[in-house]
Order: sequence, then structure tokens, then C-alpha cells
Amino acid sequence: MKQIEGGVTAAKGFQAAAAEAAIKYRDRKDMALIYSETPCRAAGTFTSNLVKAAPVKWDKELVDTSPFVQAVVVNSGIANACTGQQGMDCCRAEAECAGKLLGIPANAVLVASTGVIGMQIPVDRITAGIETLVAEKNSTSEAAHDAARAIMTTDTVPKEIAVQMQIGGRTVTLGGMCKGSGMIHPNMCTMLGFLTTDANISGEMLRKALRADVEDSFNMISVDGDTSTNDTLLLLANGQAGNPEITEEGDDYNRFCEALHYVTTYLARKMAGDGEGATALFECRVIGAATKEDARTLAKSVICSSLSKAAIFGHDANFGRFLCALGYSGAVFDPENVDLYFESENGRMHIYGKGNALDYSEEEATKILSAPEVTVLADMHMGDFEATAWGCDLSYDYVKINADYRS
Amino acid sequence: MKQIEGGVTAAKGFQAAAAEAAIKYRDRKDMALIYSETPCRAAGTFTSNLVKAAPVKWDKELVDTSPFVQAVVVNSGIANACTGQQGMDCCRAEAECAGKLLGIPANAVLVASTGVIGMQIPVDRITAGIETLVAEKNSTSEAAHDAARAIMTTDTVPKEIAVQMQIGGRTVTLGGMCKGSGMIHPNMCTMLGFLTTDANISGEMLRKALRADVEDSFNMISVDGDTSTNDTLLLLANGQAGNPEITEEGDDYNRFCEALHYVTTYLARKMAGDGEGATALFECRVIGAATKEDARTLAKSVICSSLSKAAIFGHDANFGRFLCALGYSGAVFDPENVDLYFESENGRMHIYGKGNALDYSEEEATKILSAPEVTVLADMHMGDFEATAWGCDLSYDYVKINADYRS
Repeated sequence: MKQIEGGVTAAKGFQAAAAEAAIKYRDRKDMALIYSETPCRAAGTFTSNLVKAAPVKWDKELVDTSPFVQAVVVNSGIANACTGQQGMDCCRAEAECAGKLLGIPANAVLVASTGVIGMQIPVDRITAGIETLVAEKNSTSEAAHDAARAIMTTDTVPKEIAVQMQIGGRTVTLGGMCKGSGMIHPNMCTMLGFLTTDANISGEMLRKALRADVEDSFNMISVDGDTSTNDTLLLLANGQAGNPEITEEGDDYNRFCEALHYVTTYLARKMAGDGEGATALFECRVIGAATKEDARTLAKSVICSSLSKAAIFGHDANFGRFLCALGYSGAVFDPENVDLYFESENGRMHIYGKGNALDYSEEEATKILSAPEVTVLADMHMGDFEATAWGCDLSYDYVKINADYRS
Repeated sequence: MKQIEGGVTAAKGFQAAAAEAAIKYRDRKDMALIYSETPCRAAGTFTSNLVKAAPVKWDKELVDTSPFVQAVVVNSGIANACTGQQGMDCCRAEAECAGKLLGIPANAVLVASTGVIGMQIPVDRITAGIETLVAEKNSTSEAAHDAARAIMTTDTVPKEIAVQMQIGGRTVTLGGMCKGSGMIHPNMCTMLGFLTTDANISGEMLRKALRADVEDSFNMISVDGDTSTNDTLLLLANGQAGNPEITEEGDDYNRFCEALHYVTTYLARKMAGDGEGATALFECRVIGAATKEDARTLAKSVICSSLSKAAIFGHDANFGRFLCALGYSGAVFDPENVDLYFESENGRMHIYGKGNALDYSEEEATKILSAPEVTVLADMHMGDFEATAWGCDLSYDYVKINADYRS
């Protein structure tokens, strides 16, 4: 497997476009289209929030029941959440408009929205946007890049990637893009993620691969602990690579899963590192846990802790906060038998062990914690399981961005 | 029942003192003593964090096994958490020193600490402090007030209260103080709370009353979601009011519980409103929940949500965030059938109902949300249960305080 240039148009047969539709933002592109020249199998994972945005309801239904999908229409600015029947009607209008212009059924069109909750999307603007998208869609990497920019809200950078692998003698490509910066605590964030591949893989195996993957990728990141109403991750596979269809577990499936995990982990880390107001990616790696579930719970507890996040922002070696967050996670361990380390490109330090602070240099610790990517490593000495979670520091800008996000 | 002036020395037979011991802070009092002239029955609730500070371990053991207690020694500045055997030795040295000077057994002395995790307390300074405390203890309300100030860390105001009720023909007094501003998410915060009463009540009924009470008082507040290693709430009863001993449920017990709840709720609200960096007390009241547990879960989810807290700081009527937090709480309800209201001394507004934003004035909403105490009221229409939780807004100062707390 190798990483290549590109995003959602890297795989054969996929096109993209972006448009300025003035849904809420002005003077920027705020709509995107992903289109496959041929029908796709689709898998999706969605928010576990009981309050689900209209597009989430639309997509869940489609992914479960539609024989195939072929397009995804996305807007930023307004989330179309808490919008009642009018919100559902908007989804239908989007799908019908796109379906008609693309010559495909409305139930082959997925929709996704991100932005302010509780506002209605102006349907005339979104359908005008779709006209532009359909007219301008193409398979260049510029189109993919424009799409990745158009779906941003408080994100500061677009997030996309593409990889290639060999399956059954054929070159298979997998590309993706995502957005997410605030209200990020995916259980399945307002995270939107779109993955496209030309792999030939059965619907069942596609869903299985995605479901297993998110547990260790997107579900292991958090910016603010708020699980969004709109979280959506979609994976479309059009089969154009021409590999023998993947219908069961085995080498081909594993190769696909490995590439999928590379792409999702890359995007998840990018999202965490670009969390609202973030100055650093804050990683917690837990090793020696009693169970896989414990390892995940412990790692997430640390990266979700406001006090731990503030310490990272301050480059402050206040290790007690990390230990405190491990302690209230719910996982069982012996606090006297935990080792804590700080790691970054600036060095590595053993800071706590055998129930006590070790003799360490504050200056050295501050240097390690001043890197753009900082890892807290906890060895629980309880077993052989490990997990990694990704978050970001808590800065003044997080508060600034969120104290008046709507304006 | 009526509220009176005073704090932990209001009940008969209780004394207090504060001292400047230079544990970590300079030029301020950082130690406090509570002392009862006669032996007390004691009840305590403590942090559920697996990482427990040494004083928490000491007190849990004592409350469970000691025939009576008579004094509490408290310091701020250093938490004596993650300090291994040396930390436990410090607790013992404190208790032995105080016991000797007060002429009571060491196992009648409770200890409590709050401050930085992972540092050792200088034993010589804390014992010197105890000498001052014992020499200066007295039953004035000034002594109680000084004690309430001495236990503060990032708190901006001391928190104390006293009430009186009639039980069995006698006047019974209950007073209390607490501290807590950050790392506040009691499951049983570095919250420290100390309650003193001259009620005559059996140890069993005292523990029962405290255990039941915290579920709807201290366990319903959160500043930052971080459950401390040091949370401690102690209730001492010396019986000096001379009422017939409360040994079972009934009118006397209920009157005591009512007073206890008034005191704990007052202190809990004060603590939430004085959360680190807070500019407002943020209350969420949930009514019409299917179960009591659902009501608590829903209310806590809202006041713990970073995005909801930032919206309160910004006086931003971004009601979708509150609804989002209800949605990911884990409690089951119908989002289309929830009513949301904003309430404060500046007015009341119905903002969301029947699945849609209502037609409201942004100006009016901002006015309501600009009060020093703001309530979000959610009517779930699922049943008859209700609960209230208290937190605070998320401000720049929260980040400032915590990005470099140790300096």
C-alpha cells in the first residue's frame, strides 16, 4: 500500500465539485458533490445521538434499503438538525433535484449537512447549488480538493488523502475527505467523512469493514466531548478497479481493511489536530491494559479531560491530571503500578511510576510538551491490550469560537 | 427551618481556626481546623476516582472504623494525591500531631487536602501549622469564616452557610463550608465540604441522610467534568443540641434531612457558580422525565457540555447545543416532543417545541442569557420525574487558570 496525491476523486470513476450557494456563509464555497459514474455499494456509520439531523435519517434509510447509491450532496453552514418535517422535506428535495439532473433515482442520492443546529436550509439556494455542482463535476484532484474545502465549518485546513494497494492483480484506490473541528466526539463527530474506492467488494463485507474500523479510528477522537447530531461517515465502492469481488475474509479483505484503516486514522488524526482553537494534537496511547475495551476507555478519558487539555495548551507537566482522568474512566487498575511517559518529536520522558512522581526536569518536560503533536503514554501493567485516542488542547480560541459561533 | 449567620462554628460545641503554613501558597492562610469539644458521629462520602488521594484513604478508613471523630485538619495548595507511602505517612503525622495537641486519639482526626497533584506536603510545615491552629481555635463566626477562606484554591469567594430547625423541642443547628472551583465533577469534586451539626442522631441515620442527599446536591454539579482524586464531604454531629436521638425515619429525621438538603444545595450551587473562570451559574432543570435517573442524566449532560457552556458565556441562544447534549446523554426520549425554555431574572422564553425552533427574538433571548444565573428548562413529556443540575459557563479565564495552574 502506498499513499498517493488526491482525495475523493482518486479512485476510478469518481467525480467531485464545489459550489458557492450562500446557504449561510458568504463569499466561499459551501456545497460539495461526490458522484460515481457507475452505481456503488455503500456503507455508513452515523451519530449515536438520539437527536439525529434530517440528513442522518435520510442516509440511514438509504444505506439500509437502497439497491445502490451514486451521489452525495453536502452543504456546510446549516446542519439541518432539529428542523422537523421541513428538514426531511429539504433532504428529499435535494435528492430529487440531484437525481433528476444526474439521471439517477432520488434514492441513489445521499445528503449530508453541517453547521448551525435549528435553522432551516433555504431550499431554493440548495437546489441552485446542485445545478452548479452537476454542471461542474469532474475527476480532477482540484475538484476533490475544492470539495474538501467546501464542507469545512470552523476547520482551518481541508482534510483529504488517497492510497493505492494491489488486490487480485489489480490496482485498487481508496480516497477520502472529512471535516470536523467542533462538536467532535464521534460515537459515530459534527464529523462528516466521505470515502470513495474503486474496489470490487460485496455490500456485506464493505459494511463489516467500516463498522470494525471506526472503533479504532473516528470513534477514538474527541475535541469537546459533544457527540453531534450530524455525524456521518460514508464509504462508496464502485468496483471499477476490476479486482475479483471481495466476498469473505482473507488476504484481499485484510489488504482492503489495512488501507481503510490507514485512511481513516490519517483523517481522524487530522480532525483532532484541527480541533476548534487547537494548537496541538494531543494523543494518548494506553498499553498493558486488561482488555481492549479498557484500553479504549482509558485513552479516551485522558484526551477528553478539560484539565488535561488545558495542561497541554500550557505545556505544563501537570501529570496528576492525566492520572486523575485514567482514574475516573471506569476501567479498573492499580494506580500504584502505572507508568506515565511524555513523548513528542522533542524527546521522551518517564514522569510517573510506582505511585510517585519521578525526578524530572520541568524544563525538559516543557520542551517535550511544546511540540505540535504530543503523546501521553500510559502503561497500565494489567495485560496485553492497547489503544490510542486523539484529541487536542483546550485554548482561548476554543472559547472564542464557541461563545458566539452563530455570528 | 431558618437560615442564620455563620458556618462550621454555628452549631453548639464546634470551634475552628485558620493558619498561614506556607504549604505552597505564600502570604495567605492555607490551613484550617474544625474541632468539636465533644466526640462526634461522622459520615463521609468520597471520590469515586480509582486514583484516591492519601487523605481520602485515611478518612474512609476512619469514618468506617473509628468509634468517634473530633477534629478535621485541612490544607490547600497541595492535594497529597499520587504521593505513595510518603503521602500516607504525612496523613498519619498530621493526625498524630493534632491528636496529641488536642488530647484526643489520632484516629479521631480526619484530614483533607486540595491543590496540586503529585507533590509531597512538607511535613514540618504542616505540623507547625497544626500548632497554630490548635492554639487559636475558637467558636466565633470569624473563625469559621477564616477557615472557609483558608481552604480555597482557585475559588474566588468563600462558601459557608448555617441553618437552624426545631427537633424534639430543641433548637438544632447545622453549618457548613466547602471549596471547589476546578476539577469539579463530584461523583463524590476537588470539592471539599465540611458540615457540622449539634443534632443528636445515630451514626447509621447520619450516614443514610448524607448518602441520599449527595445524589441530588453535590453529585449534580460539574465545572469541568473532571472527577477529582480528593473529593471529600464530611458531616460531623456532636449531639449537643440535646434533642431525643434520631434513630429512625420519621418527622425528626425528615426535618434534619430537609435542613441538610438546604445546606448542601446552597453550597453546591455556590461552588458551581464559582467554577473556574465562571461568569454565570448555569442551571439545567429537567421535568417530565421517565425516571429519576433519566432526569439526573439529562440535566447533567447539558451542564457538562462544553459547547452549551460556551454558548452561555457568549449569551448565545444556540438552543441546538442543549438539545444535542440531551440527545447524547443516554436517556431515551422523543426529540420531536421536547419543550425547551430559557429562564433568568431577566425573563422567560419558550424557544423550542414540537421538533422546531419557535419564533423568538434574539435580542430578548440574549437579555435572558445575560443574567448571573441562567436556567435551561427541558420538559421531556415522558413522565413525572425531575432533577436539577448546576454548572457554569466556559470562559477564557477557565483556560487561563488551567493552562498553567501550578505556577
